Amino acid sequence: MGGDHGPAVVIPGAAKALERRPDIRFIIYGDEPQVRPLIDQHPALARACEFRHAEIAVRMDDKPSQALRAGRYKSSMWLAIEAVKKGEADVAVSAGNTGALMAMATFCLKTLAQVERPAIAAIWPTLRGESIVLDVGATIGADARHLVELAVMGATLANVIFDIERPTVGLLNVGVEEIKGLDAIKDASRILREANLPQIEYKGFVEGSDIGRGSVDVVVTEGFSGNIALKTAEGTATQIATFLKNAMGRTLMSRIGYLFAKGAFDSLRRTLDPRRSNGGIFLGLQGSVIKSHGGTDALGFASAVELAYDMARHDLVHQIRAMLEKLQLEPAVDA
Amino acid sequence: MGGDHGPAVVIPGAAKALERRPDIRFIIYGDEPQVRPLIDQHPALARACEFRHAEIAVRMDDKPSQALRAGRYKSSMWLAIEAVKKGEADVAVSAGNTGALMAMATFCLKTLAQVERPAIAAIWPTLRGESIVLDVGATIGADARHLVELAVMGATLANVIFDIERPTVGLLNVGVEEIKGLDAIKDASRILREANLPQIEYKGFVEGSDIGRGSVDVVVTEGFSGNIALKTAEGTATQIATFLKNAMGRTLMSRIGYLFAKGAFDSLRRTLDPRRSNGGIFLGLQGSVIKSHGGTDALGFASAVELAYDMARHDLVHQIRAMLEKLQLEPAVDA
Repeated sequence: MGGDHGPAVVIPGAAKALERRPDIRFIIYGDEPQVRPLIDQHPALARACEFRHAEIAVRMDDKPSQALRAGRYKSSMWLAIEAVKKGEADVAVSAGNTGALMAMATFCLKTLAQVERPAIAAIWPTLRGESIVLDVGATIGADARHLVELAVMGATLANVIFDIERPTVGLLNVGVEEIKGLDAIKDASRILREANLPQIEYKGFVEGSDIGRGSVDVVVTEGFSGNIALKTAEGTATQIATFLKNAMGRTLMSRIGYLFAKGAFDSLRRTLDPRRSNGGIFLGLQGSVIKSHGGTDALGFASAVELAYDMARHDLVHQIRAMLEKLQLEPAVDA
Repeated sequence: MGGDHGPAVVIPGAAKALERRPDIRFIIYGDEPQVRPLIDQHPALARACEFRHAEIAVRMDDKPSQALRAGRYKSSMWLAIEAVKKGEADVAVSAGNTGALMAMATFCLKTLAQVERPAIAAIWPTLRGESIVLDVGATIGADARHLVELAVMGATLANVIFDIERPTVGLLNVGVEEIKGLDAIKDASRILREANLPQIEYKGFVEGSDIGRGSVDVVVTEGFSGNIALKTAEGTATQIATFLKNAMGRTLMSRIGYLFAKGAFDSLRRTLDPRRSNGGIFLGLQGSVIKSHGGTDALGFASAVELAYDMARHDLVHQIRAMLEKLQLEPAVDA
């Protein structure tokens, strides 16, 4: 029911994902009068899904606490997450309210024993391909231990999604050496270097400009600066696309040039298409949840479902738990 | 002596700035054997400047504490800042080591009585023109009082540079309502709203994507996330430019298209040229200091000098002091 367009995008998106991964099976929760007719328009999806009516839909502008109060145990969002908890589903995918989804997922699924607080990971297109950036907004602030957890969870995710045996990991920092207030980052850096984990190639500090460059496979930061980085990059991409569009439309010569170079522009558009890497991945919970961008279309929602498919196939939660157990972070680190 | 290219960029840059603002007068500090011959190549600059030899040059990789130890009282960087303190110069401009410059500027000039810690402001090209973003890296973390100070200093700067009577100001935040850890930002928001200052049109919270959009004239955040935002935007711009260049060179058709649209590309390049808005502005000190990008060329350095010129002409430090006095922040806010 979530996202800017609700089932009108979610249902065709699920149908599209099913075309590409025919062994997906769906449990779809929502308002029957709205959702059922849409499912019926996609016979293959209708055969591959079980529909379950939900009385309540969390609204996009509900505060997390409101959503929990009104929607716990009975909203479509809650029921989808609960299906993961019960083992009926491998992953829950929602285009709904991010804060509400995180609050419900944390409340319902609980965090892993070794994890204090959950995180959201984003897949970030770079000059070298794609990287993972986390946390992009679940938890504000981080001590050293939490940053190390993020590094481990991000590296496991990179291993699963990108199929890299020993992903490179960097801690996001500012380029000034002796500045105050960064003890947590420095401590986390020391721990990661000393631990020298076989599953992580720790590369030290990276700066904001390294993200787009793809300097490392996994960029680790706490949720405030991660969210600022993500949104700032989106804003910059939109800004440059607008400048480019305006520039190409300004003169006859440039409009002719645009026609000749249309193939190149289309390929650039595909490279930068935010739908290709749609899906915020909730990490640190005892179950998998994917947040699709609320403003996306069916193609974008299908990407989020396919991401969910890959995570389920590799049993990401199990792998993260195993990695964290191996790490055996001392509580003493938690200063 | 600073920057990636030292006097080879700084001296031609100063000469270029002088062409556009013929009433600038320079005091140039540096190593005489290196600098004097370069000045002699620019007769107009030679007439408009006084050269003073300095024994020591701060290195780009010196830590701030090293730079202070080795360069205090005698390096070219220190002497340029000291000229501001003595009233011999209105502004100090350096392309050198940012951390060292900030440490020396703070040590030599001291902060304003009402300001606890200094900040660096950046001029950010947006869809609507230009905005000011601060702090982009001087001070990590901020309480509510410091954020309010940043808002006041940023608005004063916007008033001076952009000639806007009542600049719009936003506090950078993440788009989630009830998240923890943001008390300082919420408190600062309340203070700014209640103060309802005649010089500031406070617009509430903005997100990372609002920066490039130009939603407000002044974006306020603490130095860690501000630095991450700035570097991430730079990285994204470089990334898209590289994608675009690769796409345009790939086929014969796109290369022909590029030739037709060359004027449009050149205009886009000018719009995004980082040299046009070069210069980190140190705020909160009892004197003006501008940090030019270390990697810039003569044109970029000239922009930094012209920015310094505008600041001096409007007596920015005096105006910031007056604004902060009017605000009369209660120490109680400082929780």
